[in-house]
Amino acid sequence: MDEKKLERLEKQLDFIREIDKEKQIFRQNCLTDGSRKENDAEHAWHMAIMVFLLSEYSNEEIDILKTIRMLLIHDIVEIDAGDTYAYADVPKSEQHAKEELAAQRIFGILPKDQAHELINLWYEFEAGESKEARFARTMDNLQPMLLNDASKGKSWEEHKVVLSKVLKRNEPTPKGSKELWNYAKERIIKKNVERGYIIKDVPFEEE
Amino acid sequence: MDEKKLERLEKQLDFIREIDKEKQIFRQNCLTDGSRKENDAEHAWHMAIMVFLLSEYSNEEIDILKTIRMLLIHDIVEIDAGDTYAYADVPKSEQHAKEELAAQRIFGILPKDQAHELINLWYEFEAGESKEARFARTMDNLQPMLLNDASKGKSWEEHKVVLSKVLKRNEPTPKGSKELWNYAKERIIKKNVERGYIIKDVPFEEE
Repeated sequence: MDEKKLERLEKQLDFIREIDKEKQIFRQNCLTDGSRKENDAEHAWHMAIMVFLLSEYSNEEIDILKTIRMLLIHDIVEIDAGDTYAYADVPKSEQHAKEELAAQRIFGILPKDQAHELINLWYEFEAGESKEARFARTMDNLQPMLLNDASKGKSWEEHKVVLSKVLKRNEPTPKGSKELWNYAKERIIKKNVERGYIIKDVPFEEE
Repeated sequence: MDEKKLERLEKQLDFIREIDKEKQIFRQNCLTDGSRKENDAEHAWHMAIMVFLLSEYSNEEIDILKTIRMLLIHDIVEIDAGDTYAYADVPKSEQHAKEELAAQRIFGILPKDQAHELINLWYEFEAGESKEARFARTMDNLQPMLLNDASKGKSWEEHKVVLSKVLKRNEPTPKGSKELWNYAKERIIKKNVERGYIIKDVPFEEE
């Protein structure tokens, strides 16, 4: 391996070592058995598998590899910027500014071509406009809902989450998959409102 | 969504909930900072990212999506069969029999077509013969080496690992990537033998 190639590989390995820290960034939702909080790496792994199992429900045909790559890397910025709970009241612009700096620093460890590629992929996810980004965001909302539901609403109860916030948070969900959103609304959200794990502060739209 | 489609989706979601348990299967190697052991889900996430960053070093051109899917699901059998340390003295056939049963049960939760697909993918990884399986196994050996090296040989020391076992374990590594194997041998293994974290019970081949 010549000097130039070795230098490239070292940058790639530096990045691979750096992102190990994502395993220490804990989210607000618990594992299905409620035993502990989930971390960002576990969350990304889970969603990557969900993408290839559930892509048949996407509103539009998607590039599966691109969607998986997007989800695998989308939370890496939290190594510097930290996790913000979906239902927290932090101003979005403030969090986003921190995440942009993080994206430049962390993806910037890679060789230029790969850094550029991953920064673009991260921005694409954040914008949520391409069909892959839309389906990725559907996964990003569905995965914690499945875990919250399985753990008997543990993190919803803990944070006294209200229905209006769940519906607001899920505005992008049907943009990736109407079918998965309808399922989640009817079979997860409604059930957990009835059980009292999500506080009903507004009526369901159809009521 | 009609009855049949709903039944299919329920099976997919049952599987997605079941594999959450992989986050509780701990490996023998530590995180880069040595603070705790790594779990299977974190390990798979890390390798999936490594595949698309390092595929340029594969001996042969590979299908990246297929390789990523293989690595994302290859340890799911450990939910039933448990983790066996790379340097443990458990008979391979005994462990493999347990893992085959686990593959049938866990992937069998999915709709038939997807169950079949993932069981085949798991067997392909285990056989280690296709070019994707060869590169996947290179990742599966390189990733813990990077973590062991970063954590100052913590798990090598803890298990009093000897060089002959490391070399034996890594016999498949050059089959996926000669370049990455040469790097690992020269810059990771040799260094950790010199530091005394890997016990030198045999000479390096070139000595």
